[in-house]
Amino acid sequence: MLEQVAVDRVFHALADATRRALVERLSRGPASVSDLAKPLDMTLAGVVQHLQVLEQSGVIRTEKTGRVRTCRIEPAGLGVAERWIAERRSLWERRLDRLGEILAEEELGEPRAVPRGKAKRK
Amino acid sequence: MLEQVAVDRVFHALADATRRALVERLSRGPASVSDLAKPLDMTLAGVVQHLQVLEQSGVIRTEKTGRVRTCRIEPAGLGVAERWIAERRSLWERRLDRLGEILAEEELGEPRAVPRGKAKRK
Repeated sequence: MLEQVAVDRVFHALADATRRALVERLSRGPASVSDLAKPLDMTLAGVVQHLQVLEQSGVIRTEKTGRVRTCRIEPAGLGVAERWIAERRSLWERRLDRLGEILAEEELGEPRAVPRGKAKRK
Repeated sequence: MLEQVAVDRVFHALADATRRALVERLSRGPASVSDLAKPLDMTLAGVVQHLQVLEQSGVIRTEKTGRVRTCRIEPAGLGVAERWIAERRSLWERRLDRLGEILAEEELGEPRAVPRGKAKRK
């Protein structure tokens, strides 16, 4: 259940073009909040809100030294979303492989046999 | 700009646990709307709404034959999100590699030289 919430948050965090632009900038190296805000046509408060969504999702972490808050990528956060997609894709590709094998057997005129363990679940 | 909208939609579509459960089921093979609704504690209308979000994002496609609407994964949709994450991660990892090289050179007592082309952008 906690994992579900984590995946929800990461995908939600990445579903916004401004937040993706911030991640894109940070994937080239750490930056302060004011550096991140400079190229954006947005109030500093707006940028801070987006950074909070990213931090709560675990995609970035921030650290305050004196009056400067520095943001950096937290690779584990992006990993959550990447893993979820890769697992779905791998299920899908294994299914296509099985279909390919069945078709190849039929073309060769061999009897169609789906091994029990691989039988499609209802 | 169109690409941005596409990425927004895919991440938004995947930011919901019910929609991810539907994608998970479909990654094992195509299914009708009523089959997809069976295990879910939700009205058919609710399931149809979630399927529409998935279809508009390009993550699934649906096809109606007679009275049955069959849903299936559209791999290109998941590919949009996967590519976006993988590109960010690769930027980040290349940066870590460069930092590693600089540290290794310093340990060996060699002069610290960052090639011009690789110099960190401000």
